[in-house]
Amino acid sequence: MATTTEYEALPALERAEPRTGTLVMKFGGTSVADPGKLKDVARRLVDARAAGNRVVAVLSAMGDTTDDLVRLAYEVSPQPKPRELDMLISVGERISCALAAMAIHDLGAEAISLTGSQAGIVTDTVHGRAKIVDVRARRIHEALDQDRIVLVAGFQGVSTDLDITTLGRGGSDTTAVALAAALGAEVCEIYTDVEGVFTADPRLVPEARKLHAVSYEEMLELAASGAKVLQVRSVEVARNHNVKLHVRSTFSQEDGTWVREEDERMLEKALISGVTHTFEETLYRVEGTTPAQLFAALAEAGVNVDTIVQTGPEIVFSAPADDRVAAAGVLDGLGVEWSARDDLGKVSVIGAGMKSHPGVAAKAFETLAGVGIEPAVVTASPIKIACHLRSDEVDKAVAALHRAFELDAPEAERQHA
Amino acid sequence: MATTTEYEALPALERAEPRTGTLVMKFGGTSVADPGKLKDVARRLVDARAAGNRVVAVLSAMGDTTDDLVRLAYEVSPQPKPRELDMLISVGERISCALAAMAIHDLGAEAISLTGSQAGIVTDTVHGRAKIVDVRARRIHEALDQDRIVLVAGFQGVSTDLDITTLGRGGSDTTAVALAAALGAEVCEIYTDVEGVFTADPRLVPEARKLHAVSYEEMLELAASGAKVLQVRSVEVARNHNVKLHVRSTFSQEDGTWVREEDERMLEKALISGVTHTFEETLYRVEGTTPAQLFAALAEAGVNVDTIVQTGPEIVFSAPADDRVAAAGVLDGLGVEWSARDDLGKVSVIGAGMKSHPGVAAKAFETLAGVGIEPAVVTASPIKIACHLRSDEVDKAVAALHRAFELDAPEAERQHA
Repeated sequence: MATTTEYEALPALERAEPRTGTLVMKFGGTSVADPGKLKDVARRLVDARAAGNRVVAVLSAMGDTTDDLVRLAYEVSPQPKPRELDMLISVGERISCALAAMAIHDLGAEAISLTGSQAGIVTDTVHGRAKIVDVRARRIHEALDQDRIVLVAGFQGVSTDLDITTLGRGGSDTTAVALAAALGAEVCEIYTDVEGVFTADPRLVPEARKLHAVSYEEMLELAASGAKVLQVRSVEVARNHNVKLHVRSTFSQEDGTWVREEDERMLEKALISGVTHTFEETLYRVEGTTPAQLFAALAEAGVNVDTIVQTGPEIVFSAPADDRVAAAGVLDGLGVEWSARDDLGKVSVIGAGMKSHPGVAAKAFETLAGVGIEPAVVTASPIKIACHLRSDEVDKAVAALHRAFELDAPEAERQHA
Repeated sequence: MATTTEYEALPALERAEPRTGTLVMKFGGTSVADPGKLKDVARRLVDARAAGNRVVAVLSAMGDTTDDLVRLAYEVSPQPKPRELDMLISVGERISCALAAMAIHDLGAEAISLTGSQAGIVTDTVHGRAKIVDVRARRIHEALDQDRIVLVAGFQGVSTDLDITTLGRGGSDTTAVALAAALGAEVCEIYTDVEGVFTADPRLVPEARKLHAVSYEEMLELAASGAKVLQVRSVEVARNHNVKLHVRSTFSQEDGTWVREEDERMLEKALISGVTHTFEETLYRVEGTTPAQLFAALAEAGVNVDTIVQTGPEIVFSAPADDRVAAAGVLDGLGVEWSARDDLGKVSVIGAGMKSHPGVAAKAFETLAGVGIEPAVVTASPIKIACHLRSDEVDKAVAALHRAFELDAPEAERQHA
């Protein structure tokens, strides 16, 4: 919940006039995990250039590089200073970009790697989760004008205090989208190790289908409620700046999933886009404070509050299990009465089409009841119904909902609620 | 030979007025090889700060980090582009500095890590062996004024084209000395894994003694002829800017070796400072070209020419065995007649005192003849006598010369030639 209201602070007027043929391509850590994969990415970039595009690539760190650096930091210090942690963990993306530039040269094309700072990614001063406040793309434009492929280190920028900052987990997606907006790119391609956005996690639901297109709003809800394919913030920036995203596989030439503005055609077809889930949620029940005081204190402590429900004196909220210690500290600090339940996951049904089809919620609850599941908490927005339920019931709930909404069938053939 | 004429291009007038208590401390890769050692370095820096110094530390990359990165580059590309190689290999020192800053914070002191660029190390645009052309130390001064320990990533800078550059192997020494000059530091301490500069390599000569002090000129000759403890360029910069060096061990509190201006006292005492050696030299004999043409072509190809001798139409020169392929390419390209001898090493006797003692050369040759060694080539400068001889005779030659010049005895007790 908190996440979807944190819009990246890119100035709204900044989007450049579309420049035919500028393409931003972002590759995640699994796509550049070793020298062989890096060379494949280089080939893909050279092909895109040969097809007439002005190519800007945003790379993540190779494989587990960032995790290894974080582990090293904790071997040195129990609580690494955020400024220094950013200095440390920003090196992974630089390594990927420098290596990719070498590989591109070997293929006979010109390339240049740029750090976030050199690429003009200016952020605020919040280390570890900085927000992009400006993109000063002079060097990128110069390099593109010299017919070069430009490789930008993802996940990082330079703060207004001239320190190196990082954008938080998955921040390379945000780098790519912000660059696409600033450069007026036709499309921002997000290359990953899956083929696109699916109606559910294929590991849970073998019949899950790849979606051809989803709206920004649906993608936001999908990402916020468990789909790991895109970082929520990057989708927000894409929506705010109307950047078309194409989520696709590094390892094939197939089309993936388009993320774009909702139009009538999409709305007619996609009643439900997908079912997402998480396994580790903690649900808190709090009395004796106000929402304003409570959520200010939680935000201060960096707790990623997801769902919030209040119907009486009791405030109920959920947050990832990872934030358990931080949340407990805040609640004890406030001196409130509270309890927590740690055995929960969350299953969400998402679709822009449900706005105009009031029967969806009822059908979802019936479906869960039919397989003997009683959610602990239910919340809904115009395009999402979310149920907190026992972690060990998540698999069953996802499969039942996927079946009930006929997500395995092509969109045109579905019987709507 | 070429090396001692490449003076770092720091403007001569740049040296700041001495500022009482500024101390530059440089730590090499073995001194920061793992988290435990990094914490020891942090403690040492905090102690220096507590003793009242304004502390600037220059760190190398941890252990084999740089070698590992270079290896990775060659896994991706047979001939990595120099600009991208610099982008890649400059990350190692950043990692060390960020981690050290974290460790210092844990000890209750304030610290800030700076990249070469952030520290204001401005270089020319020659990737892989850039020269420092300016030090713009505004951020360092600001941080020192805020009572912080400043950690500067060694071995790197930012070029006048705003690209990341590296200074070549051992470049962190040069970073440290250039900073000491620009900051007007009292002394530049070079911490390493040995206790100082020795009269010979203790692995070859167990009686070798640590030198208390040597002049810049002696240290230049020692470094250029095989002593690995300091990079030649850093000694040149120290001499040009009159920066006092103190080469000492990271793992003890003992005094090491001082490198400073030659004064009368030193000259009286130190007839011979030490005996150095290398094992792998190639000696070339060339006919049919001019020295000007030959050495321009070799320099162009990056061959590190050491000794040059010419007494007739034949030009004789030596270079490290590593440069064998490059040198052969140049010689074939010039279409000259040439031959090479690959079984040689070099032994040098160095001492500022020999300027005023003409018997030293004779004694050196007698000593070698006495143990049955006949050098292939002999060269001498006012403070050095160098003999190229068979690699398998190097050990014996070093031991004999060390004994003949009584380098195992305290300086005052020696019988001079």
